[in-house]
Amino acid sequence: MSKVRVGIIGAGRIGKIHADNLLRMAEAEVVAISDLFASEELMAWASARGIGIVTTDSTELIGNPDIDAIFICSSTDTHVPLIVQAAEAGKHIFCEKPVSMDVNRTREALHAVEKAGVKLQIGFNRRFDHNFKRLRELVGQGRIGETHLVKITSRDPNPPSPEYIKVSGGIFMDMAIHDFDMARFMAGSEVESVFAQGGVLVDPVFAEYDDLDTAITTLTFANGAFAVIDNSRRAAYGYDQRVEVFGSKGAASADNDYPNTVVVSDEAGVVRDKPLHFFLERYNEAYVEETRMFIDSVLHNRPLPVEGFDGLQAELIAMAAKQSVKLGRPVKLSELA
Amino acid sequence: MSKVRVGIIGAGRIGKIHADNLLRMAEAEVVAISDLFASEELMAWASARGIGIVTTDSTELIGNPDIDAIFICSSTDTHVPLIVQAAEAGKHIFCEKPVSMDVNRTREALHAVEKAGVKLQIGFNRRFDHNFKRLRELVGQGRIGETHLVKITSRDPNPPSPEYIKVSGGIFMDMAIHDFDMARFMAGSEVESVFAQGGVLVDPVFAEYDDLDTAITTLTFANGAFAVIDNSRRAAYGYDQRVEVFGSKGAASADNDYPNTVVVSDEAGVVRDKPLHFFLERYNEAYVEETRMFIDSVLHNRPLPVEGFDGLQAELIAMAAKQSVKLGRPVKLSELA
Amino acid sequence: MSKVRVGIIGAGRIGKIHADNLLRMAEAEVVAISDLFASEELMAWASARGIGIVTTDSTELIGNPDIDAIFICSSTDTHVPLIVQAAEAGKHIFCEKPVSMDVNRTREALHAVEKAGVKLQIGFNRRFDHNFKRLRELVGQGRIGETHLVKITSRDPNPPSPEYIKVSGGIFMDMAIHDFDMARFMAGSEVESVFAQGGVLVDPVFAEYDDLDTAITTLTFANGAFAVIDNSRRAAYGYDQRVEVFGSKGAASADNDYPNTVVVSDEAGVVRDKPLHFFLERYNEAYVEETRMFIDSVLHNRPLPVEGFDGLQAELIAMAAKQSVKLGRPVKLSELA
Amino acid sequence: MSKVRVGIIGAGRIGKIHADNLLRMAEAEVVAISDLFASEELMAWASARGIGIVTTDSTELIGNPDIDAIFICSSTDTHVPLIVQAAEAGKHIFCEKPVSMDVNRTREALHAVEKAGVKLQIGFNRRFDHNFKRLRELVGQGRIGETHLVKITSRDPNPPSPEYIKVSGGIFMDMAIHDFDMARFMAGSEVESVFAQGGVLVDPVFAEYDDLDTAITTLTFANGAFAVIDNSRRAAYGYDQRVEVFGSKGAASADNDYPNTVVVSDEAGVVRDKPLHFFLERYNEAYVEETRMFIDSVLHNRPLPVEGFDGLQAELIAMAAKQSVKLGRPVKLSELA
Repeated sequence: MSKVRVGIIGAGRIGKIHADNLLRMAEAEVVAISDLFASEELMAWASARGIGIVTTDSTELIGNPDIDAIFICSSTDTHVPLIVQAAEAGKHIFCEKPVSMDVNRTREALHAVEKAGVKLQIGFNRRFDHNFKRLRELVGQGRIGETHLVKITSRDPNPPSPEYIKVSGGIFMDMAIHDFDMARFMAGSEVESVFAQGGVLVDPVFAEYDDLDTAITTLTFANGAFAVIDNSRRAAYGYDQRVEVFGSKGAASADNDYPNTVVVSDEAGVVRDKPLHFFLERYNEAYVEETRMFIDSVLHNRPLPVEGFDGLQAELIAMAAKQSVKLGRPVKLSELA
Repeated sequence: MSKVRVGIIGAGRIGKIHADNLLRMAEAEVVAISDLFASEELMAWASARGIGIVTTDSTELIGNPDIDAIFICSSTDTHVPLIVQAAEAGKHIFCEKPVSMDVNRTREALHAVEKAGVKLQIGFNRRFDHNFKRLRELVGQGRIGETHLVKITSRDPNPPSPEYIKVSGGIFMDMAIHDFDMARFMAGSEVESVFAQGGVLVDPVFAEYDDLDTAITTLTFANGAFAVIDNSRRAAYGYDQRVEVFGSKGAASADNDYPNTVVVSDEAGVVRDKPLHFFLERYNEAYVEETRMFIDSVLHNRPLPVEGFDGLQAELIAMAAKQSVKLGRPVKLSELA
Repeated sequence: MSKVRVGIIGAGRIGKIHADNLLRMAEAEVVAISDLFASEELMAWASARGIGIVTTDSTELIGNPDIDAIFICSSTDTHVPLIVQAAEAGKHIFCEKPVSMDVNRTREALHAVEKAGVKLQIGFNRRFDHNFKRLRELVGQGRIGETHLVKITSRDPNPPSPEYIKVSGGIFMDMAIHDFDMARFMAGSEVESVFAQGGVLVDPVFAEYDDLDTAITTLTFANGAFAVIDNSRRAAYGYDQRVEVFGSKGAASADNDYPNTVVVSDEAGVVRDKPLHFFLERYNEAYVEETRMFIDSVLHNRPLPVEGFDGLQAELIAMAAKQSVKLGRPVKLSELA
Repeated sequence: MSKVRVGIIGAGRIGKIHADNLLRMAEAEVVAISDLFASEELMAWASARGIGIVTTDSTELIGNPDIDAIFICSSTDTHVPLIVQAAEAGKHIFCEKPVSMDVNRTREALHAVEKAGVKLQIGFNRRFDHNFKRLRELVGQGRIGETHLVKITSRDPNPPSPEYIKVSGGIFMDMAIHDFDMARFMAGSEVESVFAQGGVLVDPVFAEYDDLDTAITTLTFANGAFAVIDNSRRAAYGYDQRVEVFGSKGAASADNDYPNTVVVSDEAGVVRDKPLHFFLERYNEAYVEETRMFIDSVLHNRPLPVEGFDGLQAELIAMAAKQSVKLGRPVKLSELA
């Protein structure tokens, strides 16, 4: 194989980002894209990029012998059946997070992948961010000794729409799941118990859907380390994505990215522009990098940087966090069937 | 009264710091100092400063009609009896934290103070730090809207001696108590429940005394806000004292202080010196300021910046944190008798 | 015209960068590339990108009726004749800096351009850097009032090879010319006089070619403002590219870009990675942006962001700087014929 | 000698600062203070500090056998005669900068000091600033290799009064003289030539007194290094005092000091308070340190940190700068008689 031929299922924002990133790679080819709404606009979009097949039927892609790998970018409820079908068809799979909102169904998908011997990468793009990648590198090299604490600040600039909130799976499964993966990535150990608290401080609409907009989660790891994550659906000053790791020999931290380094000093003070607005700006290069590494893994049969198991673990932590809020006490991952 | 005449009980490091700070104020006079060990060295020290009375007997100071205010800088177990005696003698009182390690005894001391109508300030010096004072000022002005979360990083450069650990009252009562006060100070609300976790990651000696060296505490406040505090008895890079406050309109944070602003760039990277070493360096000016404000309050009968009630609340939170670790669940302050 | 069809003359590093950037733009098409050495490697490179014509003969591109615009990326001595030919052939032109090392020849080129009524953009890519663009924007909006002083730090990570130094035109014409353009860009006024000093502090090889490796240049502007530029051919800590502007109401500054925001604190201090290594890393996006704006200007007949006149002025300043070092006194631009 | 007994001539702001700093040192005693206007207010001020002698007659101090050292804090025109008298009386001398505005008179004073074998320290307090001291330390240790360039930003928050401007000696002798000393201090070499340019951009009042409010000065050193200094009489954002040193192995820089580390992030951007307002705030500790070192040098007969020669050199540079502006060309220090 000298090129990975890709079919993309789901032509929403994230599907198109993956397509554009793949199109820039000499080692990848985007053969087909499917979407429930194969609109005129999508036709034109695909045509301008030389993507030959546009269809409403995802099975057409999965069944296509000219396709090596499937990118699953459709709605969360479709992930498991698509993974199972693609695995059975012998395709390698890149799937957006979360795999599902039901860990048993996720396990089912992982089982199918294992049985078929294909690769499954989960879209935890933040691991590929230039800051967090460097942080992990330093931690992994022992630069700060043994890890004691991982601290994650993760706050969105603005809440999603009520329509989105309704089907999102809640703050832990939809938003904090990225941070749960980041905590595992940094700690290099598995989570044993979860304690979560939260409130509706940003917008009462979250209460209507039995959701939270503010949450504090603490994790304990098998190696004795801790993690603390704070999430908010609204940070007035922009996207706040920072990680600190404290260890026996020191600490390492990754600050936000800014659109520029300009600072203005005047009578009122010293001011700079807000951090990069949201995930498309902040994680732009991280999306490219995760795709590049998936293609590379498939092409050269190398280990994946993020596997199905990572998706499952993050979902288990999210479930435990939700339970913890409900029960008002820490929840062990081992309590979850 | 044109001057506050002060007697200092306890001539350890902190007692001497208060003495030196008082000696610089035109509105204060240090009349006497007492210490169980009125050594030659102490005599010389006092003489060089024109402090006329040096004694081993604290009651001599409390009974002295030429003394208006007592600074209690002796060991924690002596605080309550000394407060009661000083209050009954009509003296104003400045007492180091914690008042005691038993909230009922602390309440007793507060009762005596209230009955006597004297002033009692607790030594939560960090409220007077230039950074945290400015942070509180901005939060109090509504600069970041309603407070959602207070995040406190509080890590010492090195653990205390085993002798000290033994009698310290543990990480929550000895060390985190400052942070509990800081959290209340920033949140502008009272704590309702406490969840604490911790471990012995720095030095096994802590386990010998049934203590922790690493702790994560989350607080919920009556106004719906949260606080997260992380403590460590050892930060290889120096004293780490930072506070962030997140609100509906923005966030405000106070970074560490550094000995200088010099940055060296070479082939290895860009480097600056570590933060100021420990509390004597970092909170040097804060000690001066808390003393100045106590003298000012006594002299002009103005409200105190930190009262006995603040001492009591911080102790209650520390007790709840200790209980929470023991029980493995959040503890409500209302659960504590 | 719905697309600008481009021919690129010179397939060195910078020619290839422009080609790749143009290839990503829907509004541009790279029709042909010429190079004195149309190697196998270049053939393969062009073929992989769908560039149909590869030739050793630049006149083939200039004469091609299917080409609308010429990118001149060949050696400096070819710029003027190519500009003249391209202009006479009615092509729009993008030319790398400097236009030439002889201001009279540059004037000749500008004259041909003017006569032909075509567009000529000079490759002062730094104007398009996210930091400097933002800085200029703020200065232009009057955010810091009237400009008093522009301060530019411009230091390369490593000296070029002796072969390059030999034909480079010297530190002012080769390196500082970017900074001279930046100073004009920020000051919004024309330079009246130039005083330059310098030495050979980095490597004696510069002296062999009658060149300098370290230079300090001060400029005075018609509006009364000043500029100070310091150049070095070697900054051990990486590419140092900073600008500060001081005005009547305040100051604005642009710091370097870094590969990440990670900071490690340990017993030795607080350290971060060096700035981005060199111009390819630092000005990556600026190259894209200058090309995008050139295509946009040609397509929609909009004013160019950097014109031939800007190239001429920077060359005049470089000449004056060279003279100033020789004469040991300030040199007025009006002194140069 | 176990204490240095000090007499202070001149009870203006700076005289009082030195007095208060000396009063805190166990090794110094302030015996007397003289001022042309020995007001009621000064009497009260001295009495509150236990300074026994207050007089209008400076000779009374110089002739007093109970005085070991004289601090000269009176107006510049009195410096030379007072130094000569004090030296002849065998007193050690601390004198504010500049010694005089006429280098020949300064030489005369230095001659008297040398003849008498007393110590003379000049008040270049910035050498004792925590940032610049650390910077010099690192440069002196060879941390950045051989020095190539010293860059100094030195801008006052507000212009002085017209009365002050009139007698100030001009921007070079009054203000930049500190920076000329700093440049020598950092470069570790002597200045050979000076080129200065400047304008009246802040306030036309400077033109009335044939003075400048904005200046750019470049220095060349005997060791081949350069310095660039930019001065302004008004920086809207506060006192701007920064130094950068570039060397063969790297660079080191000292940023401004700020009143606190608090940063507020909101919809408008990320903002912090302005730098410390002016020299009294910024150099508070530096004043203490220079006094402490003078006392220490006198008491233990150790070398002075800043000598009369340093005062002379800075004045020569200031003179050369003034000449350079007048002549419009670089001026060599050797040109000055």
